[in-house]
Amino acid sequence: MTAAAPPGLAALVAALPANSVITDPDGMGGYRWDRALDASAGTPLAVVRPTTTEDVQATIRFAAEHGLAVVPRGAGSGLSGGSSALDGCLVVSLDRMRSVTVDPVTRTALAQPGAFNADVKAAAAEHGLWYPPDPSSFEICSIGGNVATNAGGLCCVKYGVTSDYVLGLTVVLADGTAVTLGGPRLKDVAGLSLTKLFVGSEGTLGIITEVTLRLIPAQRPASTLVATFPTLTDATQTVIDITRSMRPSMLEFMDSICINAVEDLTRMGLDRSAAAMLVIQSDEPGSTAAAEIARINELCEANNATEVYSTDDPDEGEAFVTARRMVLPAIEKLGTILLEDVGVPVSRLGDLVDGIGEISRRNRVTVSVVAHAGDGNTHPQIVFDPADTDQQKRAEAAFDEIMRLAISLGGTITGEHGVGRIKRAWLPDYLGEDAMALNQRIKSALDPQNILNPGSVFPA
Amino acid sequence: MTAAAPPGLAALVAALPANSVITDPDGMGGYRWDRALDASAGTPLAVVRPTTTEDVQATIRFAAEHGLAVVPRGAGSGLSGGSSALDGCLVVSLDRMRSVTVDPVTRTALAQPGAFNADVKAAAAEHGLWYPPDPSSFEICSIGGNVATNAGGLCCVKYGVTSDYVLGLTVVLADGTAVTLGGPRLKDVAGLSLTKLFVGSEGTLGIITEVTLRLIPAQRPASTLVATFPTLTDATQTVIDITRSMRPSMLEFMDSICINAVEDLTRMGLDRSAAAMLVIQSDEPGSTAAAEIARINELCEANNATEVYSTDDPDEGEAFVTARRMVLPAIEKLGTILLEDVGVPVSRLGDLVDGIGEISRRNRVTVSVVAHAGDGNTHPQIVFDPADTDQQKRAEAAFDEIMRLAISLGGTITGEHGVGRIKRAWLPDYLGEDAMALNQRIKSALDPQNILNPGSVFPA
Repeated sequence: MTAAAPPGLAALVAALPANSVITDPDGMGGYRWDRALDASAGTPLAVVRPTTTEDVQATIRFAAEHGLAVVPRGAGSGLSGGSSALDGCLVVSLDRMRSVTVDPVTRTALAQPGAFNADVKAAAAEHGLWYPPDPSSFEICSIGGNVATNAGGLCCVKYGVTSDYVLGLTVVLADGTAVTLGGPRLKDVAGLSLTKLFVGSEGTLGIITEVTLRLIPAQRPASTLVATFPTLTDATQTVIDITRSMRPSMLEFMDSICINAVEDLTRMGLDRSAAAMLVIQSDEPGSTAAAEIARINELCEANNATEVYSTDDPDEGEAFVTARRMVLPAIEKLGTILLEDVGVPVSRLGDLVDGIGEISRRNRVTVSVVAHAGDGNTHPQIVFDPADTDQQKRAEAAFDEIMRLAISLGGTITGEHGVGRIKRAWLPDYLGEDAMALNQRIKSALDPQNILNPGSVFPA
Repeated sequence: MTAAAPPGLAALVAALPANSVITDPDGMGGYRWDRALDASAGTPLAVVRPTTTEDVQATIRFAAEHGLAVVPRGAGSGLSGGSSALDGCLVVSLDRMRSVTVDPVTRTALAQPGAFNADVKAAAAEHGLWYPPDPSSFEICSIGGNVATNAGGLCCVKYGVTSDYVLGLTVVLADGTAVTLGGPRLKDVAGLSLTKLFVGSEGTLGIITEVTLRLIPAQRPASTLVATFPTLTDATQTVIDITRSMRPSMLEFMDSICINAVEDLTRMGLDRSAAAMLVIQSDEPGSTAAAEIARINELCEANNATEVYSTDDPDEGEAFVTARRMVLPAIEKLGTILLEDVGVPVSRLGDLVDGIGEISRRNRVTVSVVAHAGDGNTHPQIVFDPADTDQQKRAEAAFDEIMRLAISLGGTITGEHGVGRIKRAWLPDYLGEDAMALNQRIKSALDPQNILNPGSVFPA
């Protein structure tokens, strides 16, 4: 490798352990895209695979010295192009930094960024503990990526998002300085809330090399209720009726297209004629869960549910959750997807879903909707055939219109996937001029050279 | 007022509604100190009492133009001197901005900063909802102050701190711009996590004029267990044994001095001979709470508890919680107090409490300890007679040593009160050079003139 290093990289290669730098195009190929498959992804100068915070520091110092862009990546499962490579950049892949250690006494985990979310969950479970955040991709997404995007998931409706579990982190700044913020202390207000600032910063302010995560006691087995509805409005009204008085541990929504796509794949007997389905769980203790499920049952029936089925059997319940998690791969069988992540105040969920239907019809493009409904966070999936240029244009128009609709309803352009490169163009309109300027001021203060993930979130 | 306005203030007076500016010394007297009673508090040029965000903007613009320091304050219940007035400053008191409105559908409250924490709780309760954070001062502290300090309380051990409930805010920046960040959306990752950055910023980055708070369904009635222990170690070990497997909704610690001071006041029959007492609650549903309390009972007895008493009666339980909340006023009867707020990883709680005892003995000064023990967050209270100069010096030495002890144990100098002016000198040692520089970089980026609460958190 060293011999073949392009001119200029020798100093970086020398500063790092052997086999830390990839420069051959084949080897770099797997590090150019995340799951957004950004067509404009470039070709990096090199891919660096650090194994320590010091390796990351050496890499950033080299980048700063030579004015090179740095694109950090975890497992490459991001959905917003936040890890699309840039021409001539250094990709810093944290995929070799995967250790997780749990301290059961302080109920915390210390994780390196490349560890999978599932690795953290498994390490916690060994001590009867639980790391709640659960993006659908939890088996293949990195905890560093979760922190960088403030990832959500299905349990967030009751248990909150990644930020709620990050107690501390070590981050390498744009000048190569490594700073440790927070730690295994449940309460700490000394100085500005910088730990929280780095959560969700999408690699634009620094590279996270270690995370201290709060764990909680293991979740109780959940009871599951599945209900189908004749109209979208019946389903979304049910969501609102539930969330105003209860905190189910899961409250997911699938529209007719999602139901049918999953049924095509699983043949599990879902009602293909339903306009929408809700998958709801309660993890309260025994009789309380039963009362909660009974009340949810009443609310479903009051909103014209065509079928309501509930089970205390965790395996049976998990089958429905698995069906829900299969929506994205199932829809991907229908065509290429533009995946949305818009959210609204939960009171506007019906307006959002109706509006998406209208946008779908007007643009003559299929848009399926799956949602973390209890959080008002939806994932419209715009399906198109990339060989059909006109259809692709209509899909892109729908992508734009859905975000504008969310903004008009007091919602957000991204609830949990991040802005990345895919949604950067919409951020100023969403935030407004003053809040955008404030974001930019923080970015400029921490990365004056704009070498950290340029073009993601902020203009390149 | 207008006629008596000092030269230069006329433009500010003219820009605000009538009776918004106080300049007479008597009228300003009540706005010079918070509960830290900072002896170095200065005399403001004027106290401004805005009623709208626009009033705050006009005030900040005036301050920026004339290079005046601005000291924001809520209810003046702060414990770290964050609202101590400065000579010639503008105090911006938010005490007239007190509206609270609740939207039960999105389960959020929109509050002005001067509303009391108790006002938010009451408004939520009208809809069967709950705003959890509960500093002991919740009846007299403002929600704006809670947000500015990221306030904690007794229920945080299970329900988290203020930051976990802040979904959005409107903040007036150092140039008078008003920015709205976040809002009634449960998940939103568009742009940097600026809402969280302002939480806990202690008035150094902007003045918060409106807050959107997450509410949750009403808390269930709690079961209460009270246990006394023959040694501090028995009590702190019990805390660790509980927190590693359970999430009680309260887990408070009082040492012998606190027990006796409260018993002096209440004559409720607390065990004066105990070295320590724990007050513990479970708000799980019926039989689950019973099981949790039974398990806690076992752990107390395994750690040599001299007496364990539990009750399902909410009123009886509340009497013990009230006793706990009375610690500060009870200790204040013993003398003048330097109030600490140090926290450690919960595994080090015993070392912290032991070390505080050693510091107390060595400096020959009374130090009582009450603690949100489940969070590792303690409030040592250093009691001294201000007429005794030597004793006061020893008290100040103990104040210093306790913070250094906390730092040496991997802990923090402040868990929930904030740095303010009282603890500013210790912040650089706690954070370390690089993290301190990072804090300063953010401060300078957002307040280049250093007009926002100068001398609080950061050097003046």
